[in-house]
Amino acid sequence: MNTSEIVGIIAGIATTASFVPQAYKVYKTKRTHDLSAGMFTLLAFGLIFWLMYGIQKEAVSIIFANSVTLVLTLYILIMKIKHK
Amino acid sequence: MNTSEIVGIIAGIATTASFVPQAYKVYKTKRTHDLSAGMFTLLAFGLIFWLMYGIQKEAVSIIFANSVTLVLTLYILIMKIKHK
Repeated sequence: MNTSEIVGIIAGIATTASFVPQAYKVYKTKRTHDLSAGMFTLLAFGLIFWLMYGIQKEAVSIIFANSVTLVLTLYILIMKIKHK
Repeated sequence: MNTSEIVGIIAGIATTASFVPQAYKVYKTKRTHDLSAGMFTLLAFGLIFWLMYGIQKEAVSIIFANSVTLVLTLYILIMKIKHK
């Protein structure tokens, strides 16, 4: 594994994992007032396209990272709609 | 330009642009209570690694998308720390 692959893996893990503390905070507090519905809607839309991109390229890491982020993003978005 | 490139460009624009409504909401309301500091810290860390990855791969679109997202993420994080 070369340096750029390691850097890419760290990048992918960190940006994907970053949605865990936000989803957990929403789960615990049920508070979503300061979150932007526009952000999570546009993000979910973009992640679906990243997923399609990963499938077309047969890139397992892109498919995996974006699937996880999409699930967390949709959870936050649903909670945002539910707890307006 | 083939289909997967177009899908990738839509994905990159949407996920990058998704941070604009959140940054704008924070700018307007100065409210960051429901945002997770952990999310934006881990995200900034990951985006720096995506930026390094883009530089190593000489991939202009990765460099551009992650620079924009990093600036927006750092703005949200600074506001989060400032308006606790």
